[in-house]
Amino acid sequence: MATLSDPAVTPAVGDDKALATPFIKCLVRWIRAHDFYGSRENKCDAQLLAKFTVTEEQRRAIPIIGDPDPDVLWRLDAFYGAVGVAIEERAGLLVSRTMEISHEGCGRVLFTTRRLVVLSKTLRDVHRFGFSTLRKLAKTGTKLVNHAVEVIQAYPDLARE
Amino acid sequence: MATLSDPAVTPAVGDDKALATPFIKCLVRWIRAHDFYGSRENKCDAQLLAKFTVTEEQRRAIPIIGDPDPDVLWRLDAFYGAVGVAIEERAGLLVSRTMEISHEGCGRVLFTTRRLVVLSKTLRDVHRFGFSTLRKLAKTGTKLVNHAVEVIQAYPDLARE
Repeated sequence: MATLSDPAVTPAVGDDKALATPFIKCLVRWIRAHDFYGSRENKCDAQLLAKFTVTEEQRRAIPIIGDPDPDVLWRLDAFYGAVGVAIEERAGLLVSRTMEISHEGCGRVLFTTRRLVVLSKTLRDVHRFGFSTLRKLAKTGTKLVNHAVEVIQAYPDLARE
Repeated sequence: MATLSDPAVTPAVGDDKALATPFIKCLVRWIRAHDFYGSRENKCDAQLLAKFTVTEEQRRAIPIIGDPDPDVLWRLDAFYGAVGVAIEERAGLLVSRTMEISHEGCGRVLFTTRRLVVLSKTLRDVHRFGFSTLRKLAKTGTKLVNHAVEVIQAYPDLARE
């Protein structure tokens, strides 16, 4: 397995802290669980997450014309997949995800459990999906999960009936 | 405007009754409202709906390999668009639709209002989407709308708070 001393991985300040957050751990677990052909087996966690960080210059360079790149759609799937798993772990109930993305890179992702919408997020600029740092990735994911858990706590009958 | 005596339109028994149902009227209105280029302006209602009826033989002849046909996706969009509009009219509130369809023709459509899931339907065999008769189309749409309205009535606080 590659380590953080690998030249391909240049950790930023706060990355270690971010890698230790429950959300990032969940995301890494999601990615490893979906590695059906073992192509990511030899990569360390930081390498697995490298493509989630996109600098402002890189973002600007990505064209927003044409269908979003399959790589970006995979990352979007992984990110919201991890959000779903994290909600399930924290709340102790099953959650369904429904995601609609147009060719223009707009859409919506919904997490529901029975009759309750636990999280609804509008997606924009999907072509350029990414976070400036791992810390920001961890923060955004954690915030979404926290919000969904609060909604479940606010409507316990509806979520669990 | 073409009439029902047009040879291209061969009404089946019960079609007149089906065309008069609120759901079919809603579907026709949806189709006419989305006719941005006026290409359907000269068609009568029965002609507009002709492609929604697929006989058992026709269904069997449609391949389910490859992406669903854009025509079928348009019909799916129209059908569930009309379901959404009919729910809004009956319940007097705004409803959002989120639809996810995989390349294999499976997926899910969700209608939500605020925190409430008013209708959730699994989609299968999207490649072959259609109804054996207009009557069946009217019945299926009406049933979905009735179900959603019942859910809204069962959770009035959640739907309207």
